[in-house]
Amino acid sequence: MPEQSAITQTSSLARDLKDIGKLVARMRTGERLATSRVVTELERLSDVAPQLLAALEPYLGHALVVGFTGPPGVGKSTLVNAVIAEARRNGTSVGVIAVDPSSPISGGAILGDRLRMTAMLNDDGVFMRSLASRGHVGGLSPAAVRVIDALDAAGKDLVLVETVGAGQAEVDVAEVTDVRVVVSAPGLGDDIQAMKSGLLEIADILVVNKADRADADVTMQQLAGAVAVRAHEGSGVPVLKTIATTGEGVGELLQTIQNAGSKALAEDVQRRRRRRARYLIAHAATKLLEERLGSASPALDELCDEVLRAGVSPGEAARRLLQG
Amino acid sequence: MPEQSAITQTSSLARDLKDIGKLVARMRTGERLATSRVVTELERLSDVAPQLLAALEPYLGHALVVGFTGPPGVGKSTLVNAVIAEARRNGTSVGVIAVDPSSPISGGAILGDRLRMTAMLNDDGVFMRSLASRGHVGGLSPAAVRVIDALDAAGKDLVLVETVGAGQAEVDVAEVTDVRVVVSAPGLGDDIQAMKSGLLEIADILVVNKADRADADVTMQQLAGAVAVRAHEGSGVPVLKTIATTGEGVGELLQTIQNAGSKALAEDVQRRRRRRARYLIAHAATKLLEERLGSASPALDELCDEVLRAGVSPGEAARRLLQG
Repeated sequence: MPEQSAITQTSSLARDLKDIGKLVARMRTGERLATSRVVTELERLSDVAPQLLAALEPYLGHALVVGFTGPPGVGKSTLVNAVIAEARRNGTSVGVIAVDPSSPISGGAILGDRLRMTAMLNDDGVFMRSLASRGHVGGLSPAAVRVIDALDAAGKDLVLVETVGAGQAEVDVAEVTDVRVVVSAPGLGDDIQAMKSGLLEIADILVVNKADRADADVTMQQLAGAVAVRAHEGSGVPVLKTIATTGEGVGELLQTIQNAGSKALAEDVQRRRRRRARYLIAHAATKLLEERLGSASPALDELCDEVLRAGVSPGEAARRLLQG
Repeated sequence: MPEQSAITQTSSLARDLKDIGKLVARMRTGERLATSRVVTELERLSDVAPQLLAALEPYLGHALVVGFTGPPGVGKSTLVNAVIAEARRNGTSVGVIAVDPSSPISGGAILGDRLRMTAMLNDDGVFMRSLASRGHVGGLSPAAVRVIDALDAAGKDLVLVETVGAGQAEVDVAEVTDVRVVVSAPGLGDDIQAMKSGLLEIADILVVNKADRADADVTMQQLAGAVAVRAHEGSGVPVLKTIATTGEGVGELLQTIQNAGSKALAEDVQRRRRRRARYLIAHAATKLLEERLGSASPALDELCDEVLRAGVSPGEAARRLLQG
């Protein structure tokens, strides 16, 4: 039971579960254990999750939600830590969601390498939680969306969603954020090649971390080239250099994130949240569609043959397929 | 009536329309006017199209269907002409479908610059037809799929599908081919940048045409880099140089195409055709889904809010959305 420690840790709150309003109020005053309990209930989609979400609703829309994605080895965790430190210097409160779809362990797994940051663990302006895939009803992204709401309602100014890998699950999680930072680094062998094309496509900001390395400029050029492909399609994506270990470039990164996020924050909160939900639904619908199109079925074969015979149009066949 | 000329041209066949079998038999003997009539009926999805398709069915599966796509200015038409000439030297018969989604004119539009090729126009081993978007019930790809069937049944060994632009419509058409050749050239400014990423993703073979130009090697390197991204994902895409105007490299290109196509040709014809139909249906379904997700509707907003309240899972919401 990987989540047991979290439950034990907050078991003194169990009697308050009936009083959702009280729990939320305590979270709103900055009480860390209350926040932890709310996050756990939402993460696990417990029975009280719907009531909790309803109670959080009046407090939503304050936080800027920022995704950090990139291949392993680029120093993403160190960079996120540096961004947290920079944000705290400005008095900005931060929630961090660390997502590891490959890990079966939740509630502290990837935070291991964060234990160095004891200063932050004693700082009530920072709240961190790891999410892992096991135990998440309906996928990691819906759980992340609920925990984003929890940290938003808890009053965090920034919610950083850090993903460990660079696979589709991580891209999916990043899609539900307001600003997507894709992190690379020199010396990964073929840097750009290691970045799955799906990652480059979702980036609002590209970062070359470990920029003190000799081959940083090559990586910058490669990324600038890749971004130029997109610039051609009408989007301008900034490419920044950072050295997370010294903090160099991190101030500029935070500023660029906040500039990129100002548009999202100006938007109506319900529209913003609906956009996240729409992404979750779209993703689930695409998966359903792929299942129906990918599985060998006599009904689908017959539908294909009808299209080939010009008996039905592809559009009509699609309508029938969607109806299931 | 852009298609009138084609009708006039074949009006002497009108009395045979009731005898579909006779028309198909004449096409099978290589009679150009019969082929032209069959293609026109299928292209326009006329009343007799379903009967025609049924009559063609026994003769399907012989042709290798090859898509040629790439940005304007790379010399695609010249390259396709060179491939035709090379194929004819080997005794290979060729059907050509030229696709121009931006053109409202059908039945000869893009073939203008082919008029030079009078030798080919007198060669019964070559049949060409332009498709344009207007008048195509249900999109250009379904029309292209039907015309592919016509030229396949007419006994062509190779069916080349050449698209004029490099937009989504062209990518869609290319998707229904067995082998996809994506053509680039040096001196387009930013070559790779001009290639929409969607194009690189569908390529089975990449060609740098106009390879006698000074900067051809730069383009080769850029493409090799782009292909390496995919190689990283497990696919090996050959990158070839051609000079279409002199024929250099065209023999190797044709050989590479035929190698790439051998797997497709070994496959059961009905499976191959169903895959094309499945693509048409998948494309139509994705469009339907995008319409339902993209349009502002109170029902969709309510579905999103339910997901955000954890009232329904994204998967259940998706099922409801698909049911429409």
